[in-house]
Amino acid sequence: MTTLPGQLNPPPRLLLGPGPSDAHPRVLAAMALPLVGHLDPYFLQIMNETAEMLRQVYRTQNKITFPVSATGMAGMEACLVNLLEPGDRIVVGSNGFFSQRMIDIAGRCGAEVTKLERPWGEAIPLDAIRDELRRVRPKVLAIVHAETSTGVHQPIEQVGKLCHEFDTLLVVDAVTSLGCVPVEVDAWEFDAVYSCSQKGLGCPPGLSPVSFSQRAIDAMGRRKTKVQSWYLDVTTITRYWGEDRVYHHTAPISMVYALREGLRLVLEEGLEGRWQRHRTNHLALKAGLEALGLRYVAPEGQRLPQLNAVRIPDGVEDLPIRQRLLREFSIEIGAGLGDFKGKVWRIGLMGFNSQPPVVLAFLGALEQCLNATGGVAAANAAYRKGAA
Amino acid sequence: MTTLPGQLNPPPRLLLGPGPSDAHPRVLAAMALPLVGHLDPYFLQIMNETAEMLRQVYRTQNKITFPVSATGMAGMEACLVNLLEPGDRIVVGSNGFFSQRMIDIAGRCGAEVTKLERPWGEAIPLDAIRDELRRVRPKVLAIVHAETSTGVHQPIEQVGKLCHEFDTLLVVDAVTSLGCVPVEVDAWEFDAVYSCSQKGLGCPPGLSPVSFSQRAIDAMGRRKTKVQSWYLDVTTITRYWGEDRVYHHTAPISMVYALREGLRLVLEEGLEGRWQRHRTNHLALKAGLEALGLRYVAPEGQRLPQLNAVRIPDGVEDLPIRQRLLREFSIEIGAGLGDFKGKVWRIGLMGFNSQPPVVLAFLGALEQCLNATGGVAAANAAYRKGAA
Repeated sequence: MTTLPGQLNPPPRLLLGPGPSDAHPRVLAAMALPLVGHLDPYFLQIMNETAEMLRQVYRTQNKITFPVSATGMAGMEACLVNLLEPGDRIVVGSNGFFSQRMIDIAGRCGAEVTKLERPWGEAIPLDAIRDELRRVRPKVLAIVHAETSTGVHQPIEQVGKLCHEFDTLLVVDAVTSLGCVPVEVDAWEFDAVYSCSQKGLGCPPGLSPVSFSQRAIDAMGRRKTKVQSWYLDVTTITRYWGEDRVYHHTAPISMVYALREGLRLVLEEGLEGRWQRHRTNHLALKAGLEALGLRYVAPEGQRLPQLNAVRIPDGVEDLPIRQRLLREFSIEIGAGLGDFKGKVWRIGLMGFNSQPPVVLAFLGALEQCLNATGGVAAANAAYRKGAA
Repeated sequence: MTTLPGQLNPPPRLLLGPGPSDAHPRVLAAMALPLVGHLDPYFLQIMNETAEMLRQVYRTQNKITFPVSATGMAGMEACLVNLLEPGDRIVVGSNGFFSQRMIDIAGRCGAEVTKLERPWGEAIPLDAIRDELRRVRPKVLAIVHAETSTGVHQPIEQVGKLCHEFDTLLVVDAVTSLGCVPVEVDAWEFDAVYSCSQKGLGCPPGLSPVSFSQRAIDAMGRRKTKVQSWYLDVTTITRYWGEDRVYHHTAPISMVYALREGLRLVLEEGLEGRWQRHRTNHLALKAGLEALGLRYVAPEGQRLPQLNAVRIPDGVEDLPIRQRLLREFSIEIGAGLGDFKGKVWRIGLMGFNSQPPVVLAFLGALEQCLNATGGVAAANAAYRKGAA
C-alpha cells in the first residue's frame, strides 16, 4: 500500500475572508462530543432547542425554521426549488455574484427569470423593484441582503411589504447577514430566507438555516408538481424536524451540535450587542484601511460591517499581497469574484473574528505587506489622485 | 429573553442501530481542529489526500471521486440527477426501503421508472436483472448493495458487466456497505456509486462520498438539459475538487477533516482486515442472537455482517425492549422501517463498533431486557415452533 497521509495539522489561521471565519472555541469543542442517534430522545430535544434559537436569531415565529443538512448554497436551492414550478415567473435582483447563482438555479426550475440589474457594487433601489413587480407580476422576487462579492448592504426593510402588494413571495439571501447585521424575518415580511452556519453564526460551514412564512407554506401547498429535489423537499424534511419525526435523512449530528452552540453564543451576547460589535469593529477597520489609502467598493451607507470589499489600488498587485499575508502572518483575506477578480479584496470581520485585536493585527500586517511591495506609496498616490 | 438551553451534554451511547455508529475518538478529535479557508493551500492538499484515499477505499481509479457536501441521501440524488434526463428509462431493483427512495428521485427527474420487484428480505437474482435489461433496455440500472432496511447483501459482482452488455449504466447504493464488506468499484464495473461518511467509515454523518466512471462522465457529457440540481451538479462541483479549484460552494471543512481521519483509520487497518473483522464479530453476534431465539430476516449467505436485521419474536413487544435498552444500558438499536415496522430490529456492528466487547455487552443487555419482559421465554418458544 502507498504511504498514508500524515496526521491532520492545520495551520492556525486568522480567517478574514468572506468565510469561513474562525469558529469560537466552544463551537469547536461541541464538534468533538460523542454522537447520539438521529432519533435519540436527547437529539430530538437538541433539534427543538436549535430550531427555537434559530427562530430567535431570525426574529421569526415561523414554524418551518430549521437547518438544511448542507451548506448555504443548498439553502438557496431549497428556497427556490420549493417555491418555483416550471413556467413560474421570478424577478432576481442582479448586482453581484450570488444573484447570478439564483438566476442559474431558477432557470433549472424551469422558471421564467427576469433580471433586475444594477452594476456590481450598487444596491437595488426600492423604486426599481416596484416598477419591476408592477411590470412582471412575478410569483417570486429573490434578492441578496448582504452581497458577499461586493460588500453591499441591500436595504431590505420595505421590500417584503412591497412584494405582498403585488402578491409576490420574497426570497432573501441572508448568508452573510445573519448574526452580523439586523435580520427581521417577520417584521420585514420575508417569505423564505436562507443563511449558513459559518460567517455570522461562527460555526464551521455545513448547514444552512432556512425559514418559511405561512404565505410560502400556502404556496407550496398549491404546487401542481413535486419539488424537483428530494433531498431539499421542505414538506418532507419538516416531517422529521416537526412533531412527526418521520425519517428523511440522517441528520449531521455533530454539525447540529455546533450550530446549537453557535446560536447559544449569539443569544448570550444578544443580537443588538452583536450587531453593535460588528459596526464598531468595522469602523475601526475602515479608519485603518482608509489611512492606508484603500477605498470601499460600496458607497457610504450601503456597506456591510462584516464584509469590507475594497478596491486594490493601482500599482498594487493582488496575489503577492494575499500570499504574503498568508505566508508571513497566517492571515487569509478574500480575492475578488467574477467581475471583481484581481480588482477587489474582501476583508471579513465576522462573528468571533469581529474584535479589536483582530482589527489591529490585520491592519499592522497589511501595512507591512504593502510597504514590502511599495504598495502603501502606490495606494496613497492612487487615493490622492482619486480625491483630487 | 427566554432562558437559553444549557450546555451540550450528550449521553454516552453505544450506537448499534443502522447508523450513525460511534465515531472513532481520533475522528472526533479531528472535528475540533481549527478551521482553514476552503481555498487555503493546506485545505487543497487535504482535499487531494481525501479524494485519493477515497479512491483506495472504493478500489477505483475514477478521477471523479469526492465527497458530496451533504448526507448519503444527497449522494443518491447526485448520482441519479446527473445521469437521468426527462424521458430516460431506468430500472430500479425494488426490495426494500431505500430502493423506494431511488424510485421517488428518478420520478422527480422525469425518468420512466421500471421497478424490478422482490419481497423485502430477498436479494434480486442476476437472471431477473438480465431479463429486465433485455426487456426495458434502460439507460440506468440502480440497485442497493447493502439494504439497510432488511440486512440483505445484494450479490453485485456480476451486475456491472451484465449492464454493459446492454449499454446500461449501473448506479450502486453503497451507503451501508463501504468500509464493512468488499466494494470493488472498478473490478465490478460500477458507473456511479454513493456512500456516507458515517456507518462503515466511522465518521459523523454529513458527507456522501461518490465516484463516477468514465462511462458515466461520457453520459453526462451527452446531456441535452442542465442537471436539475445546481448544488449536486457533478460537472461544476468537480471544477472545485479538480485542478481548476473554481469556487462552487464553501466546503464543510470540519467534516472533510473527519472524513480524512476516518479514511486513514480504514487504510491503516487495511480493507481486507476490516472486512474480516466485520465478518468475525457478526458471527459472534449471530451465535448469541440465535441462542436468544432470534432469527434473521435475510437467508443465510445473503446477510450483511454490519447490519443484522432480525425478526421480533411473537409475544415480544418492539418498543418496550428498545426503550429499556436505551434507558438502562444506553444502547441504541434500530426499529423496522416501512413494511418491517414493529416486526424487525436492526442491529448494526459498523466501523469502530464492530468489536468483541461491544458484541458481548449488547448480547448481555438484550438478554436482560428480554428476561425482564418475559421475552426470552417467548422468543425461545417461537424459535422452537419455527424449527419444528
